[in-house]
Amino acid sequence: MLLNYFVVISACMSKRKPPRKQRPGDKHAKPEIVRIYGTHAVHAALNNPQRRVRQIFATRNATKDIPPEIDLEQADIQDLSPQDLSRLLPDNAVHQGIIADFTPLPDLDIEDLAQLSGPLIILDQVTDPHNVGAILRSAAVFGACAILTTRDHTPPQSGSLAKTASGALEIVPIVSVANLARAMDQLKQMGFFILGLDERGDTIKPADSEDQRLALVMGAEGKGLRRLTREKCDQMVSLPNHQPTDRQAFATLNVSNAAAVALFAILPK
Amino acid sequence: MLLNYFVVISACMSKRKPPRKQRPGDKHAKPEIVRIYGTHAVHAALNNPQRRVRQIFATRNATKDIPPEIDLEQADIQDLSPQDLSRLLPDNAVHQGIIADFTPLPDLDIEDLAQLSGPLIILDQVTDPHNVGAILRSAAVFGACAILTTRDHTPPQSGSLAKTASGALEIVPIVSVANLARAMDQLKQMGFFILGLDERGDTIKPADSEDQRLALVMGAEGKGLRRLTREKCDQMVSLPNHQPTDRQAFATLNVSNAAAVALFAILPK
Repeated sequence: MLLNYFVVISACMSKRKPPRKQRPGDKHAKPEIVRIYGTHAVHAALNNPQRRVRQIFATRNATKDIPPEIDLEQADIQDLSPQDLSRLLPDNAVHQGIIADFTPLPDLDIEDLAQLSGPLIILDQVTDPHNVGAILRSAAVFGACAILTTRDHTPPQSGSLAKTASGALEIVPIVSVANLARAMDQLKQMGFFILGLDERGDTIKPADSEDQRLALVMGAEGKGLRRLTREKCDQMVSLPNHQPTDRQAFATLNVSNAAAVALFAILPK
Repeated sequence: MLLNYFVVISACMSKRKPPRKQRPGDKHAKPEIVRIYGTHAVHAALNNPQRRVRQIFATRNATKDIPPEIDLEQADIQDLSPQDLSRLLPDNAVHQGIIADFTPLPDLDIEDLAQLSGPLIILDQVTDPHNVGAILRSAAVFGACAILTTRDHTPPQSGSLAKTASGALEIVPIVSVANLARAMDQLKQMGFFILGLDERGDTIKPADSEDQRLALVMGAEGKGLRRLTREKCDQMVSLPNHQPTDRQAFATLNVSNAAAVALFAILPK
């Protein structure tokens, strides 16, 4: 069943639409090139048949470490020192000796989710690229079908998101929508049951069966879900909390940790 | 029972030893002052009766945002601009308008764990402060009794660890040991059953009862558990993985996500 699930993903991905034509002033236009760095992230992107590599910048050692089975398509590899590589990235980005420029991944449409199995993660304006990257890793491990985000208030699918995702950006498709509330209506019509994560919700429990389509909505830390997003959920659910409520200091889960636990909690028994 | 658990923690913390005397050249000596930044982290530290605040640096707005119930003990508050505050911290640290210098938390001894309840998290050289900070948050939420780390290869209990912990550093005690293998022997004598997280382990399952003392050992990402650490575990356990093993890209959980899921998975049913 699981193998089958990935066959479906592959089939579905090959039907992804080509990147949208860019119009001048279209702020949602796909970039023509995305820059990815870090060993795992670059190797996974090189391995992804959905991408073309345009240029690799690497130290001699990092070039040697590229697995021999990766077809480099006669990519132009520029030999640079670690210091020179750092200058190509924002401050404090850890490149691990390799940076590469790729074509972006093609878009996936919301309708395509009908052909996939596994839960869907919906991010309501989670803007931190490290959190989104970590959520992609958990989504891959726990078999989520995709991540759905808003086009605005979402980090770019490159750089520190790709680095933190550690290869999972190449595995879990991302669907970007202009209007989240409308997308949630559409998902419900497609048979999804939408759970909103909120500390006041019912205790989260496993899916009834492998066939039940669940979507988990996560809000940004501190802000939580927006009012309209909350109203569109079928049910609000919470994770167990073992803290007394009368303490002055009260901890909450980091959003990526909450997503990981929620994905685990809804695995059918 | 849960309230009682925190009463025990408080009782236990009040018995914490005073910080060890520093000797010249002792690289494990406690710092006399730790610098903490970020709204949640500073407010929680100000609220912690185990600390004394030495100096606060803040914007006028951030000073106004300090909850009125916090006793500032006539702390010296220096009014600084956001730019001046940034100069007090490493590059890219997000201070949110407030930085403060505190006395460090007193040490907790391994023997003190006998008086606490809840699982123990053991970190085998997890060096990333963001990961350790996120693990502290999950430990607080899921009622872990403490985090045990090695004295070496562990990030300082301040700065970005405290920021990421978002207040949880003040809730979850940390035990630092010189020799992890010896500490694991001691824990087993105290009645702990030690689970090592490893992808080849048995499927993780809930604790038998509230009374079973479980310890969860997490290794660093990529490296995993060291050989001796692994040998000292009572059982190796794994989290479910829903990925086909024949794909070129294969995702793993971020260590803090794995810790959160494992803590949830061992909650007694």
